[in-house]
Amino acid sequence: MLYLVGLGLGDAKDITVKGLEAVRRCRRVYLEAYTSVLTVGKEALEEFYGKELILADREMVEQEADSLLKEADVCDVAFLVVGDPFGATTHSDLVLRAVKLGIPYKVIHNASIMNAVGCCGLQLYNFGETVSIVFWTDTWKPESFFDKIEKNRQNGMHTLCLLDIKVKEQSLENLMKGRKIYEPPRYMSVNQAAEQLLAIIQNRRLQGLKPEITENTICVGLARVGALDEKIASGTLQQMSTVELGDPLHSLIVTGTMHPLELEMLKLFSVDSSSFDNNACQRTT
Amino acid sequence: MLYLVGLGLGDAKDITVKGLEAVRRCRRVYLEAYTSVLTVGKEALEEFYGKELILADREMVEQEADSLLKEADVCDVAFLVVGDPFGATTHSDLVLRAVKLGIPYKVIHNASIMNAVGCCGLQLYNFGETVSIVFWTDTWKPESFFDKIEKNRQNGMHTLCLLDIKVKEQSLENLMKGRKIYEPPRYMSVNQAAEQLLAIIQNRRLQGLKPEITENTICVGLARVGALDEKIASGTLQQMSTVELGDPLHSLIVTGTMHPLELEMLKLFSVDSSSFDNNACQRTT
Repeated sequence: MLYLVGLGLGDAKDITVKGLEAVRRCRRVYLEAYTSVLTVGKEALEEFYGKELILADREMVEQEADSLLKEADVCDVAFLVVGDPFGATTHSDLVLRAVKLGIPYKVIHNASIMNAVGCCGLQLYNFGETVSIVFWTDTWKPESFFDKIEKNRQNGMHTLCLLDIKVKEQSLENLMKGRKIYEPPRYMSVNQAAEQLLAIIQNRRLQGLKPEITENTICVGLARVGALDEKIASGTLQQMSTVELGDPLHSLIVTGTMHPLELEMLKLFSVDSSSFDNNACQRTT
Repeated sequence: MLYLVGLGLGDAKDITVKGLEAVRRCRRVYLEAYTSVLTVGKEALEEFYGKELILADREMVEQEADSLLKEADVCDVAFLVVGDPFGATTHSDLVLRAVKLGIPYKVIHNASIMNAVGCCGLQLYNFGETVSIVFWTDTWKPESFFDKIEKNRQNGMHTLCLLDIKVKEQSLENLMKGRKIYEPPRYMSVNQAAEQLLAIIQNRRLQGLKPEITENTICVGLARVGALDEKIASGTLQQMSTVELGDPLHSLIVTGTMHPLELEMLKLFSVDSSSFDNNACQRTT
């Protein structure tokens, strides 16, 4: 049996009782280590689970899936994923391979950022399409996520922005020379995401456009959701470019139309409640 | 401290280790019993947690919140919610009351239907706005959810349809006479949801309209997601009106544009793979 086990969002104890029992039963336990991270490392998980974990990077899951699934028809193998197991497409791929090899699989769900963002008080059913904000480079500055956020807001919907993670990336030079030397991991902060959005707003204005989202649009910055040191800050997009949220992972929400109860919840986390009131009231139903 | 603890979706063991520790520490433990249900009852939870649970219905949470929060500033009180604690607006309200009373609170997240639907292979970031399909009555047949599904599909997005739950409802007669006699709980099935959608399609055609969603639109019916006897069935909307999924809770997804990997995953659950192929290929990117 292949167990796909969600680990939740905070630390070792965010696994479910069912998940923990499955992990302890398995002969081999892989930890997926490229789409998200917990606030604790591999060692803390190993100690709590009482099991040795095999780190699975993208290369391993995508190119050596058969070794990962080896003998999973006759013994139990677990694949641990931060959040819920179906947060990333590569995991669907693993399930399809297992099915083709005749290996049964079971999913043990957990919280993921996609539902845990509800903790800021914005209702999940008021969210439109989720977007990913990628790190810009000197030569590549895509803006397509901005159009989706605008569309959601025009429809009154909030947008959850997942922020880029770069793990085990090679520099262009190392890639070209075939050297397996990796850059340090990078996790986009709410500040960086806000700066990119502000830059897009400026670009649009230079083109004579009038974007729906402005410096004053109410946003929510979230850090380490579900962990003990979780931080949530609400305020204008401008304020998000300087708010201090600390260590990764970060996520950003751009609000749409707010229900009074949503607004009241957001105020619990406001950077500066006075400016908040002025800007939010225009969009409240 | 007020703990808002998500119970996940299946049975007693879907609580997280952190959640279980909190529950066992609390002086009073309430079980929210009106927005969702597990596949096991209160007694099974009490046995596993080793704690007596107090059933909290909507009336209690909305009208007697102060008794629920009594002394939560000096002792620990837990409020257990099926899925994740922020699935329903009433729970935001409880948090706001706690904050006003100076009671600190902590959220212990878990899987909810909003993220666990990923198990069918459709990617969460390809979902648009979530809708609720309500039970029609003889005199009240709203269609607004259909417009939202159409809009999502026009944008290429899938729609998660949450199906109506009627718990502790009074008949009009009992309500008028002030008798606290309640009707048996009702949970909308995928069949009933599909029939209502098919009826709307007919209505629209009678009005000379040409709805984007037809009898042949690929849908996914899900029952008891996350439980051991979970069932997933993919097929046309017409097929959803007769598919057998068993006990509640059910959910329905109306697909938008499908990525080939999504399509391949959905085929694992197809009611009838041949008709599936014919209908799905038109919408695959």
